[in-house]
Amino acid sequence: MIVKDVTYKDLIGLKEYSKRLENIGFQSTEIGKGIKLLKKMKNSTKVLTFTANMIATGLRGIIKELVKRKKIDLIITTPGALEHDLIRTKINYYISSFEENDILLHKKEFNRIGNILVPNKAYVFLEKKMMSIFKKKNIWSPSEIAKEMGVVANETSFLYWANKNEIPIFCPGITDGAIGLQAFIYKQTHPNFIIDVTKDMKDLANLIMNAEKTGGIILGGGISKHHAIGVNILRGGFDYALYLTTSTVYDGSLSGALPKEAISWGKIKEKGSYIKIYSEASIALPLLISGII
Amino acid sequence: MIVKDVTYKDLIGLKEYSKRLENIGFQSTEIGKGIKLLKKMKNSTKVLTFTANMIATGLRGIIKELVKRKKIDLIITTPGALEHDLIRTKINYYISSFEENDILLHKKEFNRIGNILVPNKAYVFLEKKMMSIFKKKNIWSPSEIAKEMGVVANETSFLYWANKNEIPIFCPGITDGAIGLQAFIYKQTHPNFIIDVTKDMKDLANLIMNAEKTGGIILGGGISKHHAIGVNILRGGFDYALYLTTSTVYDGSLSGALPKEAISWGKIKEKGSYIKIYSEASIALPLLISGII
Amino acid sequence: MIVKDVTYKDLIGLKEYSKRLENIGFQSTEIGKGIKLLKKMKNSTKVLTFTANMIATGLRGIIKELVKRKKIDLIITTPGALEHDLIRTKINYYISSFEENDILLHKKEFNRIGNILVPNKAYVFLEKKMMSIFKKKNIWSPSEIAKEMGVVANETSFLYWANKNEIPIFCPGITDGAIGLQAFIYKQTHPNFIIDVTKDMKDLANLIMNAEKTGGIILGGGISKHHAIGVNILRGGFDYALYLTTSTVYDGSLSGALPKEAISWGKIKEKGSYIKIYSEASIALPLLISGII
Amino acid sequence: MIVKDVTYKDLIGLKEYSKRLENIGFQSTEIGKGIKLLKKMKNSTKVLTFTANMIATGLRGIIKELVKRKKIDLIITTPGALEHDLIRTKINYYISSFEENDILLHKKEFNRIGNILVPNKAYVFLEKKMMSIFKKKNIWSPSEIAKEMGVVANETSFLYWANKNEIPIFCPGITDGAIGLQAFIYKQTHPNFIIDVTKDMKDLANLIMNAEKTGGIILGGGISKHHAIGVNILRGGFDYALYLTTSTVYDGSLSGALPKEAISWGKIKEKGSYIKIYSEASIALPLLISGII
Repeated sequence: MIVKDVTYKDLIGLKEYSKRLENIGFQSTEIGKGIKLLKKMKNSTKVLTFTANMIATGLRGIIKELVKRKKIDLIITTPGALEHDLIRTKINYYISSFEENDILLHKKEFNRIGNILVPNKAYVFLEKKMMSIFKKKNIWSPSEIAKEMGVVANETSFLYWANKNEIPIFCPGITDGAIGLQAFIYKQTHPNFIIDVTKDMKDLANLIMNAEKTGGIILGGGISKHHAIGVNILRGGFDYALYLTTSTVYDGSLSGALPKEAISWGKIKEKGSYIKIYSEASIALPLLISGII
Repeated sequence: MIVKDVTYKDLIGLKEYSKRLENIGFQSTEIGKGIKLLKKMKNSTKVLTFTANMIATGLRGIIKELVKRKKIDLIITTPGALEHDLIRTKINYYISSFEENDILLHKKEFNRIGNILVPNKAYVFLEKKMMSIFKKKNIWSPSEIAKEMGVVANETSFLYWANKNEIPIFCPGITDGAIGLQAFIYKQTHPNFIIDVTKDMKDLANLIMNAEKTGGIILGGGISKHHAIGVNILRGGFDYALYLTTSTVYDGSLSGALPKEAISWGKIKEKGSYIKIYSEASIALPLLISGII
Repeated sequence: MIVKDVTYKDLIGLKEYSKRLENIGFQSTEIGKGIKLLKKMKNSTKVLTFTANMIATGLRGIIKELVKRKKIDLIITTPGALEHDLIRTKINYYISSFEENDILLHKKEFNRIGNILVPNKAYVFLEKKMMSIFKKKNIWSPSEIAKEMGVVANETSFLYWANKNEIPIFCPGITDGAIGLQAFIYKQTHPNFIIDVTKDMKDLANLIMNAEKTGGIILGGGISKHHAIGVNILRGGFDYALYLTTSTVYDGSLSGALPKEAISWGKIKEKGSYIKIYSEASIALPLLISGII
Repeated sequence: MIVKDVTYKDLIGLKEYSKRLENIGFQSTEIGKGIKLLKKMKNSTKVLTFTANMIATGLRGIIKELVKRKKIDLIITTPGALEHDLIRTKINYYISSFEENDILLHKKEFNRIGNILVPNKAYVFLEKKMMSIFKKKNIWSPSEIAKEMGVVANETSFLYWANKNEIPIFCPGITDGAIGLQAFIYKQTHPNFIIDVTKDMKDLANLIMNAEKTGGIILGGGISKHHAIGVNILRGGFDYALYLTTSTVYDGSLSGALPKEAISWGKIKEKGSYIKIYSEASIALPLLISGII
């Protein structure tokens, strides 16, 4: 069974039920409140962040719709997300199980992400694409790489629509993934090849500082979450922030930190509106986004 | 805003989307697999267990539908579940927040369950009902108390339909809740009042031992989960088991234990079919049950 | 490798380090605060609750020391805890792994609890002991059964010391375990055998209502936690409460509920002192108790 | 109360108890097994990764000892870790609570990390240091920045000892933190200032590819974990891997993924030895490291 992206039609099918969420209780209620918050964000500059694993799932279709329909203004994510998005324009991922025999998978050349399998040939395909991109010039920022990936992607991908709709994609940890290993190989024969991560910061900072209001749609944690809230220090914090995560508060991790912790840092405004939804994204995100699409 | 039960119509509205779950990935996939497992269970004797907090939410409507439509054969739950079910035939619960001021709530006579509020008058109502039941005889089993609660309940409740459809409700921890405190008060003036918890075991054991096949729909953990899998030792284990929980494996707790651990105990059969869905029930249960209703 | 109980000497060895915990940060700090709270509880009536799985581990040695040294005044727990405690007076449990082949274990007659193995013969031993106890009279309360188990236990067990030191053990879900299955078998030939769970409530209520102050040491969740905080409603709540748990807040479960939620219910006093330590008990409990022993 | 680093003496004080861990059960057992695995790693090239929050706690002292005593060979971490380490050479962090009023903290110029407070002046101090470093040249790799931070640090810090002992520190997400914001400001007046993240990859790759065996000590998740296991693809995977984390498996996240998932990717060898310890690091890490120091 292959992974299939959630479609616009799927989301429309959930719209009616999404109105019922708030008065069910527990996390259904929090998703319902999240829909209200997303509606409030409407006229702000909206930053979307997500983790790479989500793009290996059907959630990729939702991210693509948000970008295609210009529901968000900029993206911060990891190289893995860019990679899965581009690969999946050509190569299928498969539904599997959390309990697979990983030694057998390795022998069969399948890589596992939870209950999803990525065939090794995915990375052969990616390498060709990336090498053709790297050739174009010597000094890159991560967002420039993402933009070029959108040029070679197709309509199923968020990279494609981000490029088309001029929605910038920032990727501060760009070398942490297959792209990084490929850059390492490429640089061996092209020593002038440089990815300057400071190059993007001005563009990102300007978008945030010039915005009348900013809103964050923060799916999962890690560097993407931190970068989004971190850059908002420059304007005194997000006006709105929605966190959707499975991480815990009690380990003091950035990934699990509640929105209120970000207030102490000036990453969310003292008078900001915010919510944390505590759920695995493959279940909650379709319900959440069905309420605003 | 009051808590509203999920309706049959709500579930029908999710049916189409539920077919899409399995190929989304991660826990959406597991819910999709869970739907298949519930369909396989169809002709078995189905044991439903759940925790009390769920009956304070809109999930009560789903439990009620399962009982009304005879989709399950017996229930194992806690006194809190019986209490919320009976109380909510007359008294509304309210949607609130996880971040409430609990001292203020206490002063205002509201009791909090996560983001749900229960007004104190709920327990005044319950006490009257329970006292009228206790009067009927001296020696009780927990299932007899649950049955009588169904007599005084109404059509919005699972207690009502369980009584009507002759679906027994077992409650091994019957004194752990308001019912227990009320029993304590009642016994002070009625010293011959007895709740004999061994009285139910024969009926429960017979249902399980005489079944051709058994299936467990285990929502959350605690005594209800343990009792359901424990009694299945008498027949060599469940043939089918679905766990829906947020508990973790790594603390060695019964609540978080995977189905496979139950195989070592003979609580699930070596050749049994099983799945663990890792999600908060208010989000996952409507999706899951929409697939079989 | 067999499971070995934590000893008094082990705890003394941790004492010096325990003084350092509070200024380390995150959950080490919370354990450090927990030690302070336990010291504050000193002159209150102290209720200790725990889950059964803990008694399959070396933590049994810590519980035994607390009872032997009269550091607590009453216990609320589950039948599984009583069973493991009595069995382990004679039969070893084994260290294993969370990743065992449970089908193989079943064939080899080992039952798994996380990474611990319980040989089947444990329950043959237990059955003999319980049958010899059940014979003594017809109508039982759970605490009377626990007391008799203490009579047939030895000095390695908390049951033994609880009996010797007249520390009552309450067990509201007494039939949910091997004891329950054995009671079911026994009752088939002894129909007058009764376990009246209402019988204990007066004793428990009196201990709580007559106490000048009450303190809860709540390890894990489930029926034991709920029963402890529930009975404190009768006096307006615990004066002190320490929760040590891995459960999450966001599913609205009783097991994961923070101490502050209990304030709304009058289960902890508005002016009560409380803490939640978020950790798996096998790691945190030795550190915590080393600070007060 | 200020945060105080765990000392070598503290670790020695835990050494005796650490021998007892394996036969306690549950996560204590896993820590005990972890100690054995760390001993097995002894002659391999050891990669240590950790998250920034840990360096705000007393765990900084343990990391420092590991680097000072050359127990590890290279570090992969985030900019936040470098920042806290350098700042804490001069400025104290404070013990607080997870339940602080963050609006008040913001007004008082304290930033919260779980139950730890960082005064705003920390970042004034950091800025001066970073500006003095940035001035030295135009084109940087992240590891060169970390090395220079070691030059200006003192003996309480791991940066100092890493510089002194020639242990490289890799930081693929270098702009994601205060360092990044400071680089943004600096670049406005120094447009030729570049951080080339591809520059470090050759050094990192060579260390990993030339090693006879590699071992990973992976504390927490995120980019540091991913980078460590990702680069090991170049040699067919880690020979040894220890994960210590609070993240869950079931969301398909990289942070929560078990070691066995990494085998499918060739990030850990098919015949590799590995363990996952499921605990919050402030509690588990001192016990773990006491066993090998």
